[in-house]
Amino acid sequence: MHSLSSHATRPLSSSFSHSTSYFRFISLSLPFLHSPKSHPKLFTISPKAPTFTIRSISAKPSSELRPKRPNSDSDSKLRALRDLFSKPGVGIDAYIIPSQDAHQSEFIAECYMRRTYISGFTGSAGTAVVTKDKAALWTDGRYFLQAEKQLSSSWILMRAGNFGVPTTIEWLNDVLAPGGRVGIDPFLFSSDAAEELKQGIANKNHELVFLYDKNLVDEIWKESRPEPPKKPIRVHELKYAGADVASKLSSLRSELVAAGSSTIVISMLDEVAWLLNLRGSDVPHSPVMYAYLIVEIDKAKLFVDTSKVGTEVLDHLENAGIELRPYDSILSEVESLAAKGAKVWLDASSVNAAIVHTYNSACEKYYESLESKRKSKTKEYDDSNGWSEGPTGMYRVSPVSLAKALKNDAELEGMRSCHLRDAAALAQFWVWIEEQINKNVKLTEVEAAEKLLEFRSRQPGFLDTSFDTISGSGANGAIIHYKPEPDSCSVVNERKLFLLDSGAQYVDGTTDITRTVHFGEPSPRQKDCFTRVLQGHIALDQAVFPENTPGFVLDAFARSFLWKIGLDYRHGTGHGVGAALNVHEGPQSISFRFGNTTSLQSGMIVSNEPGYYEDHAFGIRIENLLVVKEVDTPNRFGGIGYLGFEKLTYVPIQAKLIDLSLLSGAEFDWLNDYHSQVWDKVSPLLDGPARQWLWNNTRPLVKQ
Amino acid sequence: MHSLSSHATRPLSSSFSHSTSYFRFISLSLPFLHSPKSHPKLFTISPKAPTFTIRSISAKPSSELRPKRPNSDSDSKLRALRDLFSKPGVGIDAYIIPSQDAHQSEFIAECYMRRTYISGFTGSAGTAVVTKDKAALWTDGRYFLQAEKQLSSSWILMRAGNFGVPTTIEWLNDVLAPGGRVGIDPFLFSSDAAEELKQGIANKNHELVFLYDKNLVDEIWKESRPEPPKKPIRVHELKYAGADVASKLSSLRSELVAAGSSTIVISMLDEVAWLLNLRGSDVPHSPVMYAYLIVEIDKAKLFVDTSKVGTEVLDHLENAGIELRPYDSILSEVESLAAKGAKVWLDASSVNAAIVHTYNSACEKYYESLESKRKSKTKEYDDSNGWSEGPTGMYRVSPVSLAKALKNDAELEGMRSCHLRDAAALAQFWVWIEEQINKNVKLTEVEAAEKLLEFRSRQPGFLDTSFDTISGSGANGAIIHYKPEPDSCSVVNERKLFLLDSGAQYVDGTTDITRTVHFGEPSPRQKDCFTRVLQGHIALDQAVFPENTPGFVLDAFARSFLWKIGLDYRHGTGHGVGAALNVHEGPQSISFRFGNTTSLQSGMIVSNEPGYYEDHAFGIRIENLLVVKEVDTPNRFGGIGYLGFEKLTYVPIQAKLIDLSLLSGAEFDWLNDYHSQVWDKVSPLLDGPARQWLWNNTRPLVKQ
Repeated sequence: MHSLSSHATRPLSSSFSHSTSYFRFISLSLPFLHSPKSHPKLFTISPKAPTFTIRSISAKPSSELRPKRPNSDSDSKLRALRDLFSKPGVGIDAYIIPSQDAHQSEFIAECYMRRTYISGFTGSAGTAVVTKDKAALWTDGRYFLQAEKQLSSSWILMRAGNFGVPTTIEWLNDVLAPGGRVGIDPFLFSSDAAEELKQGIANKNHELVFLYDKNLVDEIWKESRPEPPKKPIRVHELKYAGADVASKLSSLRSELVAAGSSTIVISMLDEVAWLLNLRGSDVPHSPVMYAYLIVEIDKAKLFVDTSKVGTEVLDHLENAGIELRPYDSILSEVESLAAKGAKVWLDASSVNAAIVHTYNSACEKYYESLESKRKSKTKEYDDSNGWSEGPTGMYRVSPVSLAKALKNDAELEGMRSCHLRDAAALAQFWVWIEEQINKNVKLTEVEAAEKLLEFRSRQPGFLDTSFDTISGSGANGAIIHYKPEPDSCSVVNERKLFLLDSGAQYVDGTTDITRTVHFGEPSPRQKDCFTRVLQGHIALDQAVFPENTPGFVLDAFARSFLWKIGLDYRHGTGHGVGAALNVHEGPQSISFRFGNTTSLQSGMIVSNEPGYYEDHAFGIRIENLLVVKEVDTPNRFGGIGYLGFEKLTYVPIQAKLIDLSLLSGAEFDWLNDYHSQVWDKVSPLLDGPARQWLWNNTRPLVKQ
Repeated sequence: MHSLSSHATRPLSSSFSHSTSYFRFISLSLPFLHSPKSHPKLFTISPKAPTFTIRSISAKPSSELRPKRPNSDSDSKLRALRDLFSKPGVGIDAYIIPSQDAHQSEFIAECYMRRTYISGFTGSAGTAVVTKDKAALWTDGRYFLQAEKQLSSSWILMRAGNFGVPTTIEWLNDVLAPGGRVGIDPFLFSSDAAEELKQGIANKNHELVFLYDKNLVDEIWKESRPEPPKKPIRVHELKYAGADVASKLSSLRSELVAAGSSTIVISMLDEVAWLLNLRGSDVPHSPVMYAYLIVEIDKAKLFVDTSKVGTEVLDHLENAGIELRPYDSILSEVESLAAKGAKVWLDASSVNAAIVHTYNSACEKYYESLESKRKSKTKEYDDSNGWSEGPTGMYRVSPVSLAKALKNDAELEGMRSCHLRDAAALAQFWVWIEEQINKNVKLTEVEAAEKLLEFRSRQPGFLDTSFDTISGSGANGAIIHYKPEPDSCSVVNERKLFLLDSGAQYVDGTTDITRTVHFGEPSPRQKDCFTRVLQGHIALDQAVFPENTPGFVLDAFARSFLWKIGLDYRHGTGHGVGAALNVHEGPQSISFRFGNTTSLQSGMIVSNEPGYYEDHAFGIRIENLLVVKEVDTPNRFGGIGYLGFEKLTYVPIQAKLIDLSLLSGAEFDWLNDYHSQVWDKVSPLLDGPARQWLWNNTRPLVKQ
């Protein structure tokens, strides 16, 4: 909400107007541990901000579980969980169950959906907290209605962000007797998040207890818990990756050395996959596998379920000098890194608390032992070695994040190619859906999404959707994170706007596109709003800017046409996209959130997706993917390069939604030029009605 | 320079391209104490940033001294200064002489131009450091040539920002023997600047010595030192001020109470003048008087040379309950504030080190005395009172800064009115200069500036220029901070572009306007660049944006048309302007420097001055002043207001410099509409040739 009252309760966001989006960002990046106002640091640079920022743009919850559990089931789980509180080696007064897996992934495997299992709430964001006599679940405004339906009466629903609703920490400090012990699975919290939790509850003398050995929810889940994913890992071919593992590791090691470090622990799944030119199928939508990677100067070890590693992958890893280790042996390896004095680069915003805490404890042991050796002056102690040579954690943003974001030629070629096949599938889909509407076939949002998947899956190299399709008809289009459900979704027809945000994973690249269309006659209001969104889209698409410009500098270009009539949208304008990897990646973003000062750099991919959402009425979004590239400007003031964008997405923009009288000559030319390129690039992949549809929808418009 | 090499040496600015401007900002806000790379904090919010930022936009050095001193003169001064080093109560190894006065003023009185006196260098920015055997002067790129000419051979010129040039701190740490004593006049350093200096030299065990009693340069300046200004203070009439002193003080006191403070020391001269509805003539260009103001909950004291206070002002102050104190008694008053336990609000970025240090020392004494009373359990000691009730410094941005920036209706009315009279003077000037050129009269830049002053001074209510006129012909227009000098300036003629940036102080308001014109035939290159600057000017002028938007969000609008062809300009786009006060004020700005997150708010005044500068060729700038105002948009998404701008400046923009083929229809309409308004508003103030000139230059253009 842009309301003044929400500002009043969140003073820190008052320097910018988009308080709701700030809130979403906060609630997703930290599982409701804190209220936004207690978080000044979130307005400074946060390496993971873009990912979470983006997650709030298009939601795309990945949960596949949609149980309707009776109260008794929920109650028996809570009872079983509480029984464990007093077990030897546990001894806690409360247990926190977040949504996360051990790698801060956007999409997670079912076996890690512990919060869903214990609470019955299937939304993508939420934190459950269970005490000896209470159970509470925090989620944000997207999921209030869903959580009300899904939670049993044993649960208190905490509507995070609403006035007077405590944060998790505030609530724990309120309900626990002083000196309480709050248990967590330290694998499921980033080191930063665990530290904030620890400090927050320390105010009331509560202690944060790391329960390493067993996740308590897993203990009660038992046989019904899905198996961890076992899908085979595959090699991401060099023709798509563009750089071999040896060269990537070599660059990474140079960065380690330059920073005075000798080792890095990488825990983000897309970073592991990118560095090793491997892909997996462990989670929906993202072609990654559960794994950690430790890279040292002279060796590297992959921690993974070895049953997923076939001969080809084994050869590939051996060639690159990568050793295999069991996934579960990560902590013992981290301990031995400290014992041998390694200076370890750790990104505390993504690496989990279990790893960071284990490393730090092992470092302490190292120095204690050194001190006792020094005192006893044993032969083992070498004066020339010692403190300065000992292990130290270096807490910095992972260097893999930026390296991965700067796509090489092969990656860009794969992205260009898969976008044309994706566009062909979309053309086939649009023909089909127009036919259904014309024939008055009743068509639901879910059926539309399923048919789109069918067309996409026929394209060469198709692997998966890149997120849950947002297929929103009429008022549902105004729900930015809408996911249609078969039993409740709306009908797509000729009387409503239809917003379709979807994407796919191909063997050579990743797509993400939104189009908004009307199958009948749009209202003047809809056309006015659509045209202004389009003008913003064009302004960003056409932007030229000097090197070293952060994305937020360009964000206002996309909003200015809406602002002129007092409209806006509550999400960022662009997020990074991986090449045959995660549909949301950092470190860059294009957003009003000026905390992210990462500059846009040649080879980065960003989405361009301004929108407008009228509550209970309609939603509009127009999204293309763009590549940042150097522009051949006639001048180069300051001796630096000037950058602009190359389009990846080639799908028609519906002409009937455009009020041509609002367009400038240049905008008009942009549109005709774009459609001409769409025809040239995509028509060779089509025949029959789809080709005819493309022809009809790419003809030059004539200005009145 | 936008060059890559300059980035390489300044890693902290690498996240943005305008490294030179960063450097200027830094070099002006701190007198060359540090290299930019050691200053991460400067990239965060700095309350004084806008002022200094702006200072770098248009320079306008205020110095009136232009001596050509022989070496011997300079040497004898250095000798005399060094003789003082070993005097009792001094005992120093180096003395730093900054440009500042005791109030961090942009324009200062001659008697405070100590750095100019000791070094002979008359530029507006620079720091002199004298050791027992060396003398060095730091200045920035604007002044390298001038400093080379003006400094005698006894001085080392430090070209700040050039590769390998040490900062003042680095140099002191290098040339002084360990344990050196570095003297400063603590009135001439903000508390923040002194603290950074102290810490910087502490690395080499040097000590910073505050010499309160006498400025060493004043000691040797003696009789030849100009008298401190004695011009009478006048009351700024309520019809112009719009709010009486009582109501301003009442608002301020509410803020003090809300912050838990009881007292504020105000040292910025424009803040004192604004709060008390007084104006002075102590410095060029700014209608202020040297004074401090201490506001307590139940009283207020003005520290000023009472000889400047006549009967009317005395009555005015008495009515408002303001007591008078001698200017020099500020420190003893600050001591007594601590002694009586006052919690004092201090803006450490503007209040000088003498005041802050004196207050802190007095606080220490207070607590020492309290401790001794507690130990002796004397009757005087009251247990219920004590530490929590004692004095404390509250270090925050002055609340007067924002209050002053939000103009009331009377202030806006005065600004509107004086801008029309200013426009009339400019029309008369343009007629005159065109006549001179047509008659082939040889005309220098200085003569042009003087004639402009003559026309302005005939306008009712004229008081002064608001800064040194930048009258730049041809290549001089590309020197952003150019000030023509009679003996070296260029000729204005029909073969060159002419950039004229000027402004005036009137009794009811302050103006600041830049126009660029060509008296002959501009080149296609000049027209292309001018048109893109104009398009940026129009884009910012027409911007509509939600409440709570910081100025930097709009900055790119003004650059985008230049960026498209690889051009840019190395200064911010807009600064705040006082109402019958300083031509540069904070806290808002419109700049690529995103450290200033102050939102633009209704009633603020900003300049809109994009430009383009081609070294050794020409300079272009188009500057109007704007008022931020609420816009009546058809929607109010988020329930908040949307803001835009009202123009204050009404002076024609030269049509012959515009390439009409580049303009969109909307830009074309903007230009014709603006000129139509110029005619309507300014023609009633003109007759004869000037009225005819205005008619000729405001006729609607016809699009080819």
